[in-house]
Amino acid sequence: MTAKTDAPPLPDSYTTLAGILREVATITSAQALLSWDQETMMPPRGAAFRATQLATLSGLVHDRSTSPELGEMISAAEADPDVQADEALAASVREMRRDYDRAVRLPGSLVREMTEAFALGMEAWRSARERNDFAAFLPHLEKTVDLNRRAAEAYGVPEGGELYDALLEGYEPGMTAAEVDRVFSGLRADLAPLIHEIAEAATRPDDAFADRRLSIPDQQAFNRAVVERMGFDMEAGRLDVSTHPFCSGIAPGDTRLTSRYREDGFLDALSSTMHEGGHGMYEQGLPEQHFGAPLGEAAGLGIHESQSRMWENMVGRSRPFWEWALPQAKAAFPEQLGDVDLDAAFGAANVVQPTLIRVESDEATYNLHIMLRFDLERAMLKGDLAPADLPEAWNERIRADLGIEVPDDRRGCLQDVHWSMGAIGYFPTYTLGNLYAAQLWAAAREELTDLDAGIAAGDFSPLLRWLRENIHQHGRRFPAPELCERVTQRPLSHDPLIGYLREKLTPLYGLG
Amino acid sequence: MTAKTDAPPLPDSYTTLAGILREVATITSAQALLSWDQETMMPPRGAAFRATQLATLSGLVHDRSTSPELGEMISAAEADPDVQADEALAASVREMRRDYDRAVRLPGSLVREMTEAFALGMEAWRSARERNDFAAFLPHLEKTVDLNRRAAEAYGVPEGGELYDALLEGYEPGMTAAEVDRVFSGLRADLAPLIHEIAEAATRPDDAFADRRLSIPDQQAFNRAVVERMGFDMEAGRLDVSTHPFCSGIAPGDTRLTSRYREDGFLDALSSTMHEGGHGMYEQGLPEQHFGAPLGEAAGLGIHESQSRMWENMVGRSRPFWEWALPQAKAAFPEQLGDVDLDAAFGAANVVQPTLIRVESDEATYNLHIMLRFDLERAMLKGDLAPADLPEAWNERIRADLGIEVPDDRRGCLQDVHWSMGAIGYFPTYTLGNLYAAQLWAAAREELTDLDAGIAAGDFSPLLRWLRENIHQHGRRFPAPELCERVTQRPLSHDPLIGYLREKLTPLYGLG
Repeated sequence: MTAKTDAPPLPDSYTTLAGILREVATITSAQALLSWDQETMMPPRGAAFRATQLATLSGLVHDRSTSPELGEMISAAEADPDVQADEALAASVREMRRDYDRAVRLPGSLVREMTEAFALGMEAWRSARERNDFAAFLPHLEKTVDLNRRAAEAYGVPEGGELYDALLEGYEPGMTAAEVDRVFSGLRADLAPLIHEIAEAATRPDDAFADRRLSIPDQQAFNRAVVERMGFDMEAGRLDVSTHPFCSGIAPGDTRLTSRYREDGFLDALSSTMHEGGHGMYEQGLPEQHFGAPLGEAAGLGIHESQSRMWENMVGRSRPFWEWALPQAKAAFPEQLGDVDLDAAFGAANVVQPTLIRVESDEATYNLHIMLRFDLERAMLKGDLAPADLPEAWNERIRADLGIEVPDDRRGCLQDVHWSMGAIGYFPTYTLGNLYAAQLWAAAREELTDLDAGIAAGDFSPLLRWLRENIHQHGRRFPAPELCERVTQRPLSHDPLIGYLREKLTPLYGLG
Repeated sequence: MTAKTDAPPLPDSYTTLAGILREVATITSAQALLSWDQETMMPPRGAAFRATQLATLSGLVHDRSTSPELGEMISAAEADPDVQADEALAASVREMRRDYDRAVRLPGSLVREMTEAFALGMEAWRSARERNDFAAFLPHLEKTVDLNRRAAEAYGVPEGGELYDALLEGYEPGMTAAEVDRVFSGLRADLAPLIHEIAEAATRPDDAFADRRLSIPDQQAFNRAVVERMGFDMEAGRLDVSTHPFCSGIAPGDTRLTSRYREDGFLDALSSTMHEGGHGMYEQGLPEQHFGAPLGEAAGLGIHESQSRMWENMVGRSRPFWEWALPQAKAAFPEQLGDVDLDAAFGAANVVQPTLIRVESDEATYNLHIMLRFDLERAMLKGDLAPADLPEAWNERIRADLGIEVPDDRRGCLQDVHWSMGAIGYFPTYTLGNLYAAQLWAAAREELTDLDAGIAAGDFSPLLRWLRENIHQHGRRFPAPELCERVTQRPLSHDPLIGYLREKLTPLYGLG
């Protein structure tokens, strides 16, 4: 991205405002580096003080994000006809207002109570999960639900909406629980039979070769080469190792990915790297000149996830991808992978098999894991499900949806960190990401007629260009549902995801 | 370091003050991480924005360090009899006052002018050095001298002192130009003949073996093992690679070293690592409970440098050290170093040979490089030497002191970054470090009778314990000259350094 030099000057009211937000974002970017470092580089004894560093910077950001002066500047920009005459700037100011109002609506006392409770909650969850002790976590879960309910009330429930909407808004602006429910219900109705058919299928691919032991440094080199080939700019980023893979768009020109490696986890590492690479290319594609303003930010977690899922799944589990990648992998690991053929590689990347653990699940059953979390957290927030009854509700739903028994809460309702860290309303963004990914992918394939052939030749640039043009360059100008509809000419639907899965899985599993 | 749990509670006036300074130091620690990352991990395209991040945090630190509220809190602590009754707290508050008064004396407009001028100066210097073009750097040097003069006037010249004192105070609190001059003159009078004798010596060690090519990853492992054995705590630190080696005490529990490696630079890398390790162990030995307050900070750059020089030179170039280290090195590099004997290794670590470049010079001639810089920068500040005449003065002095000709300014007065970044008064701390190191080393050897035998057996813990006890634990409680005198029972003198060099070099060079 280079800054536009021939653009007309921005109105003063906007420039002043953007300058303040850029300073706030600069402090946030220092925080982002501290967090990245904590997961990748920090020596163990640095941990205690790192929490203090992060809290101090958070305080500085919070003070600035909620200052009356900022509110006045936003009002001034809202009242400036030159701003309102420019659709992009008007959208940017609309989103600034949204962020500001949310931030100031939450009383400082509640923010502090939440920060403290969620820090304790995370600690309690770690130990409860380890000891498989739901009872020990229960009071923290109750507190989390209660605090989220109070936060949602403080944010304010939209007309005709529900408490959950006020939380979802923080992760997926412009989305409502009812709309999620509508799309998820359709998905569920079509996905459950597909998974049932697959479970009954006579033919099935296996991923036995994926267990072969490959040196970790060689895997790292291979992953780096793949993600660079995808289009991730290593001059403006890094790829490191952490316990849980993540992507951090730290600052303009500095986007960092992590992945994780096991000697017998070749496919897992590759899909993690491609996933984070998708996030990273979105960060690298956001307009740098708008850093700190909504026009320089992602359109929400769902769209962010659509980028990672598209590269991980639509690209990385496709036959064309393996036409290109398998010879690369064989060249990198001739002894271990020399005998693998294209059918085996493509099949191994597409094993669909119900599992207990969300993060280990395949791209089809994954969505059932998310839908159950959405339903259960929404019910807890509404008061329809008592936190004490969560394990029973969880286990029953896993049985109904996946046909497997949950042997203990560690592999059931205690498996995810989200609720312990206070995040209610976050889970649906994962499946929204899959849905957006499939719908955008269908649109890209329609437009880019040589897409498959290019990928098979290792040329990913047409897809990246398409995403830059249609998604990345807009930042947060459009709410996600509107962005999706602008690009694909239709509202978000579950049809493209089901269509994509059926098309790919039908031959692999000999479905009817 | 563990916090004292049985200490009496601190007076409220001190606790409040220390809390504010701790917050400032917390922001500074985030800056430190950004700087470390810039030199070690940051992708190239992150550079432009990194400058913004650093400047933003600098601004936050500056605002807080010069706020009237902080001044009032310092006054309150000064007036609190409970603080003044405790010698350590009183010393801490005295140093806080010193820092605060310095910070507020510099007008904001001058700070901004300096920041901008020195950023431009560094850029100009890099390109001038590369093109060997002193004329291009000259206006920047003139500006640097002028700005430093104005800063010194703003700081205020002490009674009977000179402008230079006001600058030196920023790097070496409690030291004056006249005192530096006194010690340096004595050193010069004894060092020049020693170097002359060495130049004429019939016998001389060589370091031919040090050019053998050793794999860089294996060297890194070796250096890591040595620095850990010295006592650097890797649970509370790291060792990485950067273009210029450095140590950053980022935060409590997090001290980071870098070194640099060439396949044919085994001894260079080792001495860099041991040098930075010495700095790092000082940082790790500062009392964590006083983080942010002078009691938790180093006693000045000279004492900091004494720690690095002691480990690099007094330990790392000693015969006992090589009795232990050579077998380790042979085990790590059996093919390349199998035939090296102790005399060769010890000799190679002690080649004394005049060179043009300060950072490549040996531990004896190094001090002549520093003394010339001190004299020349002092003369420029006084107005006795015009910046335009610097090259001539430099070259003449190198000829007189080292008996070699300077072929170009790149290898002459353009070689160091310091003046370009605005640092006048910094250079003498390097030789002060060598002087403190030798004087402390003499005291340690007197007290620790088994020191040599321990080092020869790879046991460095008695020395580290002695340094922790005598230097590290005090933080900035005592000004450096006083600290030195308390520990060694005599004022700073050049005798121990000369004595140390003569004792070691006499047999190696067959001196009279």
